[in-house]
Amino acid sequence: MKRIKIKDLLASGEVGAKVNVKGWVRTFRSNRFIALNDGSTINNLQAVVDFENTDEDLLKRLTTSAAISVVGTVVESQGKGQRIEIHVDELEILGDADPDEYPLQPKKHSLEFLREKAHLRPRTQTMSAVYRVRNALAYGIHKFFNEKGFIYMHTPIITGSDAEGAGEMFTVTNFDLKNPPKTEEGEIDYKEDFFGKAVNLSVSGQLEAEVGAMSMGEVYTFGPTFRAENSNTSRHLAEFWMIEPEMAFYDLDDNMDLAEEMIKYLINFAMEQCPDDIKFLDQRYAQDQKTKPQNERSELGLLERLNFVAANEFERLTYTEAIEVLKRSKPFKKGKFKYPVEWGIDLQSEHERYLVEKEFKKPVILTDYPKDIKSFYMKQNDDGKTVRAMDVLFPGIGEIIGGSQREEDYDKLLTRMNEMGVPQEELWWYLELRKFGTAPHSGFGLGFERIVLFVTGMGNIRDVIPFPRAPKSAEF
Amino acid sequence: MKRIKIKDLLASGEVGAKVNVKGWVRTFRSNRFIALNDGSTINNLQAVVDFENTDEDLLKRLTTSAAISVVGTVVESQGKGQRIEIHVDELEILGDADPDEYPLQPKKHSLEFLREKAHLRPRTQTMSAVYRVRNALAYGIHKFFNEKGFIYMHTPIITGSDAEGAGEMFTVTNFDLKNPPKTEEGEIDYKEDFFGKAVNLSVSGQLEAEVGAMSMGEVYTFGPTFRAENSNTSRHLAEFWMIEPEMAFYDLDDNMDLAEEMIKYLINFAMEQCPDDIKFLDQRYAQDQKTKPQNERSELGLLERLNFVAANEFERLTYTEAIEVLKRSKPFKKGKFKYPVEWGIDLQSEHERYLVEKEFKKPVILTDYPKDIKSFYMKQNDDGKTVRAMDVLFPGIGEIIGGSQREEDYDKLLTRMNEMGVPQEELWWYLELRKFGTAPHSGFGLGFERIVLFVTGMGNIRDVIPFPRAPKSAEF
Repeated sequence: MKRIKIKDLLASGEVGAKVNVKGWVRTFRSNRFIALNDGSTINNLQAVVDFENTDEDLLKRLTTSAAISVVGTVVESQGKGQRIEIHVDELEILGDADPDEYPLQPKKHSLEFLREKAHLRPRTQTMSAVYRVRNALAYGIHKFFNEKGFIYMHTPIITGSDAEGAGEMFTVTNFDLKNPPKTEEGEIDYKEDFFGKAVNLSVSGQLEAEVGAMSMGEVYTFGPTFRAENSNTSRHLAEFWMIEPEMAFYDLDDNMDLAEEMIKYLINFAMEQCPDDIKFLDQRYAQDQKTKPQNERSELGLLERLNFVAANEFERLTYTEAIEVLKRSKPFKKGKFKYPVEWGIDLQSEHERYLVEKEFKKPVILTDYPKDIKSFYMKQNDDGKTVRAMDVLFPGIGEIIGGSQREEDYDKLLTRMNEMGVPQEELWWYLELRKFGTAPHSGFGLGFERIVLFVTGMGNIRDVIPFPRAPKSAEF
Repeated sequence: MKRIKIKDLLASGEVGAKVNVKGWVRTFRSNRFIALNDGSTINNLQAVVDFENTDEDLLKRLTTSAAISVVGTVVESQGKGQRIEIHVDELEILGDADPDEYPLQPKKHSLEFLREKAHLRPRTQTMSAVYRVRNALAYGIHKFFNEKGFIYMHTPIITGSDAEGAGEMFTVTNFDLKNPPKTEEGEIDYKEDFFGKAVNLSVSGQLEAEVGAMSMGEVYTFGPTFRAENSNTSRHLAEFWMIEPEMAFYDLDDNMDLAEEMIKYLINFAMEQCPDDIKFLDQRYAQDQKTKPQNERSELGLLERLNFVAANEFERLTYTEAIEVLKRSKPFKKGKFKYPVEWGIDLQSEHERYLVEKEFKKPVILTDYPKDIKSFYMKQNDDGKTVRAMDVLFPGIGEIIGGSQREEDYDKLLTRMNEMGVPQEELWWYLELRKFGTAPHSGFGLGFERIVLFVTGMGNIRDVIPFPRAPKSAEF
């Protein structure tokens, strides 16, 4: 008999049908009721055992996380919440889970504890819901761009280029670290290394994605990126996934339109694909809020917030206007901001939160930042002071997207690279894009885990990626 | 006026409509006819310039790869091959491409030359067709698995685990290579490194994908993997993309069924999504075949081969049966095989090619290989000699998929790990999957570039990925 997945059975199983279901025991109570889960849905199937006619030794092995195969008959459910359940005719234990040894019992474990059990945590409701939402968001990204005719482009992971001009990068090498070859001057002789030069893990695929935009028009990347920053926060990972669309013939307005459309699409798509998971996460979020001090609680529930963001236009204003808003604000006047507010500063989290959560109460897109706090490749405005940058700021998350129109003028780009000490030799090809058939173009980067955080309502970025990588942490 | 993409215009542009088109000049001939391409399709739009009323300096700047914006009126095409063309009303040069400097002229360049111009090669017909097919295949993979309810899972890139037990791996470090910290014994003190231990770039996400399968049922990965093998061939890359599905409750037959269904789906999907690109590549392939000696030519054209593979059942036989077939073969009897044929050998390319191209004349799935030439995690057969492995062999490509049912028995797995010297300490979590709720499960790996090679008919793997990484080669 072919196995049916629990999701499909719950959706369309007919009363009276005989079915085979396989999965892991979530709970077994009253020596009768198995809550069975196979990962296809957050919902468990109730499988009712005829305990009087079942071997007692077998019943004892129905412990949390035991893998079983059940053949049974679909009946109407007597309990509430589910349409159907099954009456067990045959029961087979595929794999035991000794309750004295199995670390996850059917009680609430802390997320910190679960992180150390990353090989078992997807068997919990919370984590499997997060992973299914993550999957929906990833698929939503591909679907969104595919429907628009964008080309998915794999940019290199190992690279000699540094997109940001300053990121802290991991070294990739094939040397024996105890004894790397050296030049006569005592320097490491990278010519002898695998790639014949010093290489790193990419911090961004943007520069290579521009190659795609300047030939295929509209492209996007979706791949891992890396930062060797020693920051142990709930917002940073050493290895994370980024989506970087890059489009020829787009100016900054087109870029903002695309970013806003994409985010709304993704939120709607996740709500549509994972209603049960998000309902569960919404309840979890509400409970979690109750444990917080009153003044740190979110005004909106998770689902409310998702619907709100999907339905409302993002606020768009320039960095310069934002500085003025901040200077007119109560916390500024009352000296409540910890960091100073003046034109030229890199906005701090407290400033961004004020704009998003207090002033506009919705996502905000800031544009035209001072050139000195932004990257070399951003298009310079005529004022000589600002660049065509944009940051999308989200409640509770901060910057979720950073992007810009790119400098398409060869001379301006070269001058800026020299001013900022960006090596031309490495980026000769990037410069040549401005030499041969240059055109206005724009793009942005979305930190994938940031949007997963937002849609799941989870508080720590290590709980939205299966195997987080952070300082002193690369288990599994 | 909003720009229309050339693909959309050619498909549905109405005669008489006024449109704005932007792109790069492919050719400009007779001082009148611009072949314009914007990357949305392999087909160029013919834009006809009224040269008598156009500034001569402007006409001179219509060189290959110049970026232009054109406003024009859609008219019925006089030439053959295309339904419509446009008559240019307004013409703007967005970016020049000095023909004395621009390296790609409208003539046939060698693929080797184009590799050195990886930032410009997607402006050629061949490479942009390959990239669009690559995009279609990538999207097809996500679509295929999404429709089946599989969860897309991001497995770690930086890892301390070695899935194959033997792969040559790149080291990832944050040390200053000139002066890494050492222990008192003079060993590298990895405790001081970023992750507090020695880490590498992943050679496979399989082991972590098994975590997903043993909780969420059916998962797949699609991410970059790395091999530090010093092999400069047309079939190997140091950085390539892999798809690794992993499924609970699947035996080897289910695994083979899924692999075959997936490949056929992908081939059909690419043909359906990219008919023009594949038609072009089919012609290119035919021309390329003509340059080869008669006995090396493919019997089928590219399109014929794709249709053939999509329509026919793959041949399935055991390794042991394959050895018998080889021993009965003409080349064996005539001593034409370079390498010996006997039970226990790792099949050589000549053997695989004989099976696929001469004996069965279609894709072949070999199963149940000798355990000593396969990985520690494969399910052991009762014969004590073989494991439940499967390799899918393709014409012209060789192994395109490798997979197996996984050993789900804790004791058998542990014994095999000890026999093969696979460290338990690193893989404690992998072992625990067999300790808590173990179940039969299977999976396989598809080398993404291999399927792109097959579908595009390209001969060198460096021409099917935008920025290839190989020994002494990490430019861009």
